[in-house]
Amino acid sequence: MNTFGHRLRMTTFGESHGRAIGCILDGVPAGLAIDEAFIQEQLDRRRPGQSALTTGRKEPDRVEILSGVFEGLSTGTPIAMVIFNTDQKSRDYENVKRLFRPGHADYTYWRKYGIRDYRGGGRSSARETAARVAAGAVAQLMLREIGISVEAGIYEIDGIRAETLDFEHARRSPLKALDPEAEIAQENAVLAAKEAHDSVGGAVLTRARGVPAGLGEPLYAKLDAVLAEAMMGINAAKAVEIGSGVASARLKGSENNDPLTPDGFASNHSGGILGGISNGDEILVTTWFKPTPSIFREQESLTVDGEALRYKLKGRHDPCVAIRGVPVCEAMMALTLADMALLGMGSRMEHLAAIYRR
Amino acid sequence: MNTFGHRLRMTTFGESHGRAIGCILDGVPAGLAIDEAFIQEQLDRRRPGQSALTTGRKEPDRVEILSGVFEGLSTGTPIAMVIFNTDQKSRDYENVKRLFRPGHADYTYWRKYGIRDYRGGGRSSARETAARVAAGAVAQLMLREIGISVEAGIYEIDGIRAETLDFEHARRSPLKALDPEAEIAQENAVLAAKEAHDSVGGAVLTRARGVPAGLGEPLYAKLDAVLAEAMMGINAAKAVEIGSGVASARLKGSENNDPLTPDGFASNHSGGILGGISNGDEILVTTWFKPTPSIFREQESLTVDGEALRYKLKGRHDPCVAIRGVPVCEAMMALTLADMALLGMGSRMEHLAAIYRR
Amino acid sequence: MNTFGHRLRMTTFGESHGRAIGCILDGVPAGLAIDEAFIQEQLDRRRPGQSALTTGRKEPDRVEILSGVFEGLSTGTPIAMVIFNTDQKSRDYENVKRLFRPGHADYTYWRKYGIRDYRGGGRSSARETAARVAAGAVAQLMLREIGISVEAGIYEIDGIRAETLDFEHARRSPLKALDPEAEIAQENAVLAAKEAHDSVGGAVLTRARGVPAGLGEPLYAKLDAVLAEAMMGINAAKAVEIGSGVASARLKGSENNDPLTPDGFASNHSGGILGGISNGDEILVTTWFKPTPSIFREQESLTVDGEALRYKLKGRHDPCVAIRGVPVCEAMMALTLADMALLGMGSRMEHLAAIYRR
Amino acid sequence: MNTFGHRLRMTTFGESHGRAIGCILDGVPAGLAIDEAFIQEQLDRRRPGQSALTTGRKEPDRVEILSGVFEGLSTGTPIAMVIFNTDQKSRDYENVKRLFRPGHADYTYWRKYGIRDYRGGGRSSARETAARVAAGAVAQLMLREIGISVEAGIYEIDGIRAETLDFEHARRSPLKALDPEAEIAQENAVLAAKEAHDSVGGAVLTRARGVPAGLGEPLYAKLDAVLAEAMMGINAAKAVEIGSGVASARLKGSENNDPLTPDGFASNHSGGILGGISNGDEILVTTWFKPTPSIFREQESLTVDGEALRYKLKGRHDPCVAIRGVPVCEAMMALTLADMALLGMGSRMEHLAAIYRR
Repeated sequence: MNTFGHRLRMTTFGESHGRAIGCILDGVPAGLAIDEAFIQEQLDRRRPGQSALTTGRKEPDRVEILSGVFEGLSTGTPIAMVIFNTDQKSRDYENVKRLFRPGHADYTYWRKYGIRDYRGGGRSSARETAARVAAGAVAQLMLREIGISVEAGIYEIDGIRAETLDFEHARRSPLKALDPEAEIAQENAVLAAKEAHDSVGGAVLTRARGVPAGLGEPLYAKLDAVLAEAMMGINAAKAVEIGSGVASARLKGSENNDPLTPDGFASNHSGGILGGISNGDEILVTTWFKPTPSIFREQESLTVDGEALRYKLKGRHDPCVAIRGVPVCEAMMALTLADMALLGMGSRMEHLAAIYRR
Repeated sequence: MNTFGHRLRMTTFGESHGRAIGCILDGVPAGLAIDEAFIQEQLDRRRPGQSALTTGRKEPDRVEILSGVFEGLSTGTPIAMVIFNTDQKSRDYENVKRLFRPGHADYTYWRKYGIRDYRGGGRSSARETAARVAAGAVAQLMLREIGISVEAGIYEIDGIRAETLDFEHARRSPLKALDPEAEIAQENAVLAAKEAHDSVGGAVLTRARGVPAGLGEPLYAKLDAVLAEAMMGINAAKAVEIGSGVASARLKGSENNDPLTPDGFASNHSGGILGGISNGDEILVTTWFKPTPSIFREQESLTVDGEALRYKLKGRHDPCVAIRGVPVCEAMMALTLADMALLGMGSRMEHLAAIYRR
Repeated sequence: MNTFGHRLRMTTFGESHGRAIGCILDGVPAGLAIDEAFIQEQLDRRRPGQSALTTGRKEPDRVEILSGVFEGLSTGTPIAMVIFNTDQKSRDYENVKRLFRPGHADYTYWRKYGIRDYRGGGRSSARETAARVAAGAVAQLMLREIGISVEAGIYEIDGIRAETLDFEHARRSPLKALDPEAEIAQENAVLAAKEAHDSVGGAVLTRARGVPAGLGEPLYAKLDAVLAEAMMGINAAKAVEIGSGVASARLKGSENNDPLTPDGFASNHSGGILGGISNGDEILVTTWFKPTPSIFREQESLTVDGEALRYKLKGRHDPCVAIRGVPVCEAMMALTLADMALLGMGSRMEHLAAIYRR
Repeated sequence: MNTFGHRLRMTTFGESHGRAIGCILDGVPAGLAIDEAFIQEQLDRRRPGQSALTTGRKEPDRVEILSGVFEGLSTGTPIAMVIFNTDQKSRDYENVKRLFRPGHADYTYWRKYGIRDYRGGGRSSARETAARVAAGAVAQLMLREIGISVEAGIYEIDGIRAETLDFEHARRSPLKALDPEAEIAQENAVLAAKEAHDSVGGAVLTRARGVPAGLGEPLYAKLDAVLAEAMMGINAAKAVEIGSGVASARLKGSENNDPLTPDGFASNHSGGILGGISNGDEILVTTWFKPTPSIFREQESLTVDGEALRYKLKGRHDPCVAIRGVPVCEAMMALTLADMALLGMGSRMEHLAAIYRR
């Protein structure tokens, strides 16, 4: 169950402090120019250790492509990508070997498997998202060829919400903030939490443009349902909204319906999806992240033997996981849309005839 | 793409005004007592025409089991269930044949498939959820055998939120309200909207109790991710929260982490899921529904030929789809948990040995 | 696990003596003219009771389409088809209720599920293949639109092999024989076995023409591998050969390689498949069926309580299951090829661009 | 489509002359002792360059485990295994860059993808089977824990058939021959073909013992159907037989039915499978391999530009691929059975209750 997607399938592997993490991306059509520099650039956006806002760990996150690319082009065969782990301070984790960190997956992995790689969260570490970003970058390359772009940025941190949505700014900002005005307060909230050995939550808004009407496979691979799965599966995600989301549920039908006009939809409460199928408008998804569970204040918990204890975590952690979640949200959106584009090819007999006409 | 689940797989079929709707539920273990009365009871809870709060359509929604049950027990083979359509007033839909209703899937099905069954929304009609409820009832029977119960109720309508969570009350209430106090205001909001030929949105809280720690298949069939997919795929759903959801993102880490004590978790912000795996606490999911798009006020839209028009919809529709969404949320939660219980059997070698020991 | 196919997915249900059998066929592109007469015609070819060569059971096998077709065209939504059981003589099976018929699935279903519908073999009955034939007929309609035809006929019965391959003749012949010469001896073998209360085996050759080069998804949905799965999954199948099959393994490489010339391949030992991908030549698959296990001679077996017994089966059974296997082989070939045609659409970026070009 | 299995899923990657080949094996239960020496030993059995009977290429085929194992035990997370390519003489393949080798996948990859990695067959090379053997070795470790063993050997080469089945002998023999008597003639046939710059075909018999009754998921993941898929998907396989296979089709029902006695089945024509489910007897599968298409005699073919040419292949190739196919058949059998064991856990409610009983 480490595979995402139907026709474009990413299977990831690896633990935080094992030898490597990586993925196999299967289903990339042949003939796509694989821009390795772009893949690395996306990884660099997720990479820790770049500012005071994120964890101090230093991982070069250098991706190596092992297969599926020949003379710069995809060949239609599986693209395996691997990132070897280098900055593994497993000793940091000796002290958590026998205990369950609150808010972490330590306890649940223990209960499920009866065994766990406790070093840095093992498989449950957000480090795995580097593999998603690498695969997502390939998906973005695919989408570009059909005119689709995907972007994301910080929408809210610690209750401070963006009022303007400037995706250009987000791409340059260390906080990846959508609103240059709100950014200062958001940044201060992160630094204050860090100072207090605590953490804050936030939200990432992901947008796709140029999505043709018709993507999404009802009824059990609806575009919104799969996006919800994709985003909720990111570490620390606790809520997903499509378009106006919760706010839609507080409008009247007459306010929430997006009028359809000869020039397109007059509003976009729907977030570009109706009946689980894209309507041609912008796809908008908001993903809410809880505050990082790894904090450096004294907390109550249990040992693996069931004894209560109070302890203080050590190590290096992000005070706000939402920030580094931005490229991960982009990746999951891109993987989902590329998958849906492949699935959607079979929606009409005329498409089939176009490909196989003789 | 009309299949939900991995090991317990529901495949549904049918259009609102076709001959029948139904499903095949595949993967039910042999030896489960199939309580047909319970299945019908769950369907009756979803059935329209029961009060002024829901649509006036009258569909008996009588389910027939065609296979997979022998002498009252499941045999391990696919359970096919069918509900024949009876109250089909296709004439009601003649007037929408050539136009796209705002907020509906009419436009997107047209763009995707180039053809659509316009009668009552065809495949995109919420009528399909009857098949989910039937399958979900079988899943609930399975879950009972391992001590898991699933319940849901109305949490919010038109911005009026439940302050108490009384699932017993919800089961008896025509509104399926969790809070008997809030119920009156919620009911008035629905009736006022109906009177105004408009509609309101709402939220359903779904809870599972007795879920053992260890359910959920990381990293791409995490319990929270699959629940998000399951709930977001319900007609009109626009947001899904796990546990405290959006509110978690506004807490500090020190507030949001649920302390683990010898008596269990001291709080449940997580909604019973950590790292995508159940932690033994109650599973809590909130699903937000937009207001019914079918309203009886004049709206702007387009014809299939791209001409702008203003029109008023006729027909019979729920003023608040969240209400009838309650048993559907239960069904999707039950299907997800039963699937995860089956998947989870393979998590440890000792389980394998226990089943096949000789 | 009652689903066949990746993008074109058939899920079947039903027991021999239950209320109905049927299937949901999911993934048919929109806009296909659904020729119900053709579907029924294919079912009629499989239907028992048509000559002395097959079982005397009389089942009208009248198919009803419940969904997915609107005004004669597929809509892209699931096509549910049902065949109600009518000629159910469950009494015939009272005598097998407590025993395991040799060569049958009685014993294995009992061991697997601990419960079984013993009436007529229940789920393991070849009656289920009627659902395959109905779904396969829809697949054939799809294939026709891209110039692919599928045919099958009896290649061998009781060791008597066809020397000529006349698929036209097979379509008219009661034995479905490929060789009008061999037919007489083959027919006599069947009738002699029937007379002797025994049964004979045989082989079906299935051919597809007009298959474009490029179908098949290496490495784990290779065309030959999926065809092997498809054919071996038919009741009573015990061997599958692609092209020259076993005979290829007895040739030298210099004899077996099919020379590639400007006019195509100079021979077709490969059966039209190289590296799991179609090469543009005819696809040839031979499926070998064991003699019907239901015979009317005294046999040794066990009761469900483990006691040895000798008994004679009663009832109505085919003396040679291969005969009615002919349309089933066609169906499985058609379903496989249609699935591969859908999957293959995503093999090149230029296809993706062609569909989504703006 | 580079994934095999339902619950135990192997996804492979890599080209013959790329950087590496490998796989991710997902779904291994936690707590399995991972015997790396055994994995390497199985790889060594497949490794070329060990005798005059196989290709002279020298590949150490050293496997590295990148994830999923902690302190010697599986953790329930994906096990990634990689084998770096070392003996890559890409220059050998310059001469085939512009032409299609007869009997090879060159032509079909070209037609499917419009691009191909021509070095050593690229993805279609039998080199990929090393990844299968590594994954299959892990599956064998799983099976051992529940008392199942898997073995294979050479049954026939160039028409010379084994009369005795000595699996112990096969494990030691360079030819992997089942019959020490036939071995000499079989070996001579291989060497004579090599001398003549030609190749021979053969058959591998694979046997599993200790398989409990009840494995196999009817109707579309039947044990025999999945084994047929597994074996036919191996490079150069052209036919698969279950039990007596083709020979069964030439018996009468009264001869072919295996009588069921209090001491088990009195014969095993069925190959241990009835109705797609294991019956507790030995599982027997015969896989037929065509002669290696790579021969060193002049052959006719085409260039990528469609021009006819005559040429002689150079390089190093197995004169009989069946020999090195032996451990690959074992691997595919083991992967299939381990997957079925995991799937089969959900067949009865009593199993579910046993795992989750409180």
